[in-house]
Amino acid sequence: MIVVMKEGATREELQSVVELLESKGLGVHVSEGAEKTIVGVIGAKDRVRELPLEALSGVEKVVPVSNPFKLASRAFHPQDTLVQVGEHVIGGGTPVIIAGPCSVESQEQIIEAAHLVKQAGGQLLRGGAFKPRTSPYSFQGLGEEGLKYLALAREATGLPVVTEIMDAELLPMMESYVDVLQIGARNMQNYTLLKAVGRSDKPVLLKRGLSATIEEWLMAAEYVLAGGNPNVILCERGIRTFETYTRNTLDLNAVPVVQYLSHLPVVVDPSHGVGNWRYVNAMARAGIAAGASGLIVEVHQNPQEAMSDGDQSLTVENFSQLVQDVRRISTALEPETAGILKS
Amino acid sequence: MIVVMKEGATREELQSVVELLESKGLGVHVSEGAEKTIVGVIGAKDRVRELPLEALSGVEKVVPVSNPFKLASRAFHPQDTLVQVGEHVIGGGTPVIIAGPCSVESQEQIIEAAHLVKQAGGQLLRGGAFKPRTSPYSFQGLGEEGLKYLALAREATGLPVVTEIMDAELLPMMESYVDVLQIGARNMQNYTLLKAVGRSDKPVLLKRGLSATIEEWLMAAEYVLAGGNPNVILCERGIRTFETYTRNTLDLNAVPVVQYLSHLPVVVDPSHGVGNWRYVNAMARAGIAAGASGLIVEVHQNPQEAMSDGDQSLTVENFSQLVQDVRRISTALEPETAGILKS
Amino acid sequence: MIVVMKEGATREELQSVVELLESKGLGVHVSEGAEKTIVGVIGAKDRVRELPLEALSGVEKVVPVSNPFKLASRAFHPQDTLVQVGEHVIGGGTPVIIAGPCSVESQEQIIEAAHLVKQAGGQLLRGGAFKPRTSPYSFQGLGEEGLKYLALAREATGLPVVTEIMDAELLPMMESYVDVLQIGARNMQNYTLLKAVGRSDKPVLLKRGLSATIEEWLMAAEYVLAGGNPNVILCERGIRTFETYTRNTLDLNAVPVVQYLSHLPVVVDPSHGVGNWRYVNAMARAGIAAGASGLIVEVHQNPQEAMSDGDQSLTVENFSQLVQDVRRISTALEPETAGILKS
Amino acid sequence: MIVVMKEGATREELQSVVELLESKGLGVHVSEGAEKTIVGVIGAKDRVRELPLEALSGVEKVVPVSNPFKLASRAFHPQDTLVQVGEHVIGGGTPVIIAGPCSVESQEQIIEAAHLVKQAGGQLLRGGAFKPRTSPYSFQGLGEEGLKYLALAREATGLPVVTEIMDAELLPMMESYVDVLQIGARNMQNYTLLKAVGRSDKPVLLKRGLSATIEEWLMAAEYVLAGGNPNVILCERGIRTFETYTRNTLDLNAVPVVQYLSHLPVVVDPSHGVGNWRYVNAMARAGIAAGASGLIVEVHQNPQEAMSDGDQSLTVENFSQLVQDVRRISTALEPETAGILKS
Repeated sequence: MIVVMKEGATREELQSVVELLESKGLGVHVSEGAEKTIVGVIGAKDRVRELPLEALSGVEKVVPVSNPFKLASRAFHPQDTLVQVGEHVIGGGTPVIIAGPCSVESQEQIIEAAHLVKQAGGQLLRGGAFKPRTSPYSFQGLGEEGLKYLALAREATGLPVVTEIMDAELLPMMESYVDVLQIGARNMQNYTLLKAVGRSDKPVLLKRGLSATIEEWLMAAEYVLAGGNPNVILCERGIRTFETYTRNTLDLNAVPVVQYLSHLPVVVDPSHGVGNWRYVNAMARAGIAAGASGLIVEVHQNPQEAMSDGDQSLTVENFSQLVQDVRRISTALEPETAGILKS
Repeated sequence: MIVVMKEGATREELQSVVELLESKGLGVHVSEGAEKTIVGVIGAKDRVRELPLEALSGVEKVVPVSNPFKLASRAFHPQDTLVQVGEHVIGGGTPVIIAGPCSVESQEQIIEAAHLVKQAGGQLLRGGAFKPRTSPYSFQGLGEEGLKYLALAREATGLPVVTEIMDAELLPMMESYVDVLQIGARNMQNYTLLKAVGRSDKPVLLKRGLSATIEEWLMAAEYVLAGGNPNVILCERGIRTFETYTRNTLDLNAVPVVQYLSHLPVVVDPSHGVGNWRYVNAMARAGIAAGASGLIVEVHQNPQEAMSDGDQSLTVENFSQLVQDVRRISTALEPETAGILKS
Repeated sequence: MIVVMKEGATREELQSVVELLESKGLGVHVSEGAEKTIVGVIGAKDRVRELPLEALSGVEKVVPVSNPFKLASRAFHPQDTLVQVGEHVIGGGTPVIIAGPCSVESQEQIIEAAHLVKQAGGQLLRGGAFKPRTSPYSFQGLGEEGLKYLALAREATGLPVVTEIMDAELLPMMESYVDVLQIGARNMQNYTLLKAVGRSDKPVLLKRGLSATIEEWLMAAEYVLAGGNPNVILCERGIRTFETYTRNTLDLNAVPVVQYLSHLPVVVDPSHGVGNWRYVNAMARAGIAAGASGLIVEVHQNPQEAMSDGDQSLTVENFSQLVQDVRRISTALEPETAGILKS
Repeated sequence: MIVVMKEGATREELQSVVELLESKGLGVHVSEGAEKTIVGVIGAKDRVRELPLEALSGVEKVVPVSNPFKLASRAFHPQDTLVQVGEHVIGGGTPVIIAGPCSVESQEQIIEAAHLVKQAGGQLLRGGAFKPRTSPYSFQGLGEEGLKYLALAREATGLPVVTEIMDAELLPMMESYVDVLQIGARNMQNYTLLKAVGRSDKPVLLKRGLSATIEEWLMAAEYVLAGGNPNVILCERGIRTFETYTRNTLDLNAVPVVQYLSHLPVVVDPSHGVGNWRYVNAMARAGIAAGASGLIVEVHQNPQEAMSDGDQSLTVENFSQLVQDVRRISTALEPETAGILKS
């Protein structure tokens, strides 16, 4: 942490900053520059961050020099984390494709969808039973009934199941049905929920919030890791910008940035990222080329009959094409083929 | 809802849009323009919104023509909603000032703070017992102990108490201590929590999410209203933009826009809105001048010792100045003095 | 400037940073923290900023500690700059109101508009002769003809004239007609134009770019000041965010922030800031309450016949109300009345 | 264009909208819905767009149904535009790589850079002679001297030259040296400049503005096309968001969206897009996988000595790796290899 004093800050103002820091047991290192005096603070970074130094007279600003995340940082855990889900590994070299409808609509629908996803080359099944909807009047999902159908779909196809949890109270019930617990974008900073899934032994797919910085996203992961659950999969799903031709702006920059800062695997959701089926294939290809460990894609047997997100759902035919295109890219980038270096 | 067909869409494509709509019992009105054909859809707007029309071939885009909120809309409830809290009314002509520390830190601190807020001219006391913190390692609040201290502070001063609820499960316990339940920005789309407070008879102060559109914010209010709780106070607290000199960008435009669209009162939080005590007074004045029904302000006996948000907390002296400045503005704008028209 | 080394950076990496800095004649101050080593750099800040230190191996990031603007900074020029335009002073205690139509449409229209602005209480006349339009097919303004009409309107009313310059080549011609040269938001970083008006002796009204940070805006002012023209008036006119109910998001936070960082006066443009006449009065009031030195407002005799920006133009009646409301606020905040302190 | 009337708009209000439209010679089509009345407007879209309909009483909002660009639209020109530069074609199947230093620093530097770019597999040379710099105190480029060196570098290597034009007045001079005229992000809406290059017979590389919507970007292209120059290459170079780990947010979503809306080729600038050399390779790969027609990349013989943008410049070795990685992806996606469909 560095404290930058204002130009013209007095000796007394500097002194009171130094005294406050020392009273908290922190090391202090003063550099007087031509224009400004800078105070370096040495010590446990959490304690430093808590101090309201900008409230002190004579202080211009406080600049953190360390990232606030620890367990999520690559410095702490240099090797890539590999998350095992059934027989699949997320974070190894081969991209894993998670696909399925936005919502579980019926037993038949989800079992059929699971078969189609599997045939087309998907490895995990997604489907929402509890749906976070902007409107209280929209379809809110089938609830536990939907989880039962997901479990049946898994039984029928062997595909592990990913579904969203919205309520900490329901965790034990949900654990009995699902393989991966998804935290949705709107709940990325629902700390009650993050603490709950931190105590689970199911892997957690943590979506980035609509306007979350990468740092905040990693701090949300830190809540889960700090709770004792090491199996966090990050999911980039689009951020909010001024652009209106796309529903969100899929931020693929996050893929290499997360890989530099953290050991956690990151997957990409092009369906929510763009919100329009026309652009999903292009962004799926791009996500894999950027180095993502997988994709999560909305597919529906009949998008125009979907009960939610039909506009961004792929037909099975288009999904099948996507799987092929993506495989072609991942093969082209394989180290043995490509001699590609981790940048 | 209007469906805009692509230039060059075929007769068959148009026909299948019309058929889908009619099969759902919706009225259809086709206008063929020079360049494009437009299909007007008449009928219950919720059912229309659910249809994934953009998934149909030949459709360029779908344009909603109605706002999705109902109970929150001014069309539904033309008079301003007045929310009674103790002897104060939020939404009437006189701005209500809610103030206090970010966190409840001890019994002595919060009782002293309450006295100081009252002396300076504040009407309600704020203070966090459950704190949503970006880092799992930061101070998370005193929990129920903090609520007890808040209740004691109310007893000592008569100030009603506003505090944040983060967990639906804790609602009954919280209701026994507090006067207004605050939903924080990070939980604005935590639908489990919104549904819970919708069943409460305590007023709800609903903060706007960091990147929530005004429409989404009103839809979050709609969840509470639809649950049966009519006493929603909206709170603008800054949105996220690219600017870094301020922690957030307080969006005062939201004040007149909300007043045009909705009957719910809107208050402004300049402390979180800018994140720096230096700019709080200016933005508090501006908020009231824009027409806000009140303010929520962070004040601390000793900001540089605050356990959270000290950088943006006012000293008691500065808060006292703020109250005077704000009163001066609200007096200048009173209808009898000013002849101001509702624009 | 502070160079933060990565955790685990080697002694050699640190050494090469130090050597590069010393080879440029800069002072260097190394602090070894528990986790990271920090290199403080002392010396002329411009030379430091140019160095591509992040390209060096072992460097995590480079953190500037000084603001990059000089002539625009309050540290350089502690007193408020007052810009004289005719008999009016922008930056003194009394807000100056600039008003008029978006475009000059005809001689009669602008002369009539000038009379109406004057009667309603405006001090300067605005009107565009060269219009930056998103579409090449939209009305582009009357050009020099429009400037002549503006000069006639000034003659008729005594109101000084503000108009936009889009082309450096036209500066001498424009100087012969106008009193204040406006740089539009789209040209805020048109350095050719900034350098040109820096050589003029006419005051410059510099609009903030649609996504310009406050720092970049002050750097644009720095170009004008560095060219020798001290009379820069900053104009906040809304930034771009995700919100769609307003055309832009008027960022009033910029008012106190600019006043803290700089000595230059700042005025507010609520018309472009919100893009809808309904919200202009509220945001004008808020701008003045935030401390702005003036307003620039679009008014039209007949908004529904305006050739541009009719949707956001006030009628003369609504403008007249705005002037009264704003005067009431500025009176309420006058130091002698209010005892208000500069925060 | 569709005019949505407010709920409760009167018959007279509706009538005056209809009359205004008819008085302009436009066709009108009224649909009365359950809640709202909608007026469809038929006729030349430019004339409709100009009308300030929201200024009319009883009007809630006006919704455009057509895109405002014409010459740039795919509807107008269904085939992909191919831009020939020397022997290279931008917009055909094979990605074209433009590379070079941020600034031309000396004759030797740029000639050496050109040789290195060519050896590594680049097809065009970039280098700035006129530099748009945030600070007036930063290196502003060598000016015409720099253009001469670029021309010498072309002579030495055969690589066509791309460089930025900042000043319409300098166009004839610049045309005598360069092959492609670049319009920088900051000048995307500098209409004086757009009109000037619209009269040139040199291809134009048009960078997207920092907060430009895709629609505004295509409208800027429309200015060039309307001026008579059909050879516009669009360049996505990152937009401004709240994220701070990257300098900008490279918006690859723009690639498929532009390809859907327009016939113009789009290339990607990962160097400015992320602002950090570490992430350039990943985003270059992603850009090509998304379908971009090429890349523009900053490369420097010695990034830590670069006079500008060293932090984001690749070493020659890393650039060489990038070219290989990118070729591998484009080969994998070739239609004959991949059977990939245009989505």
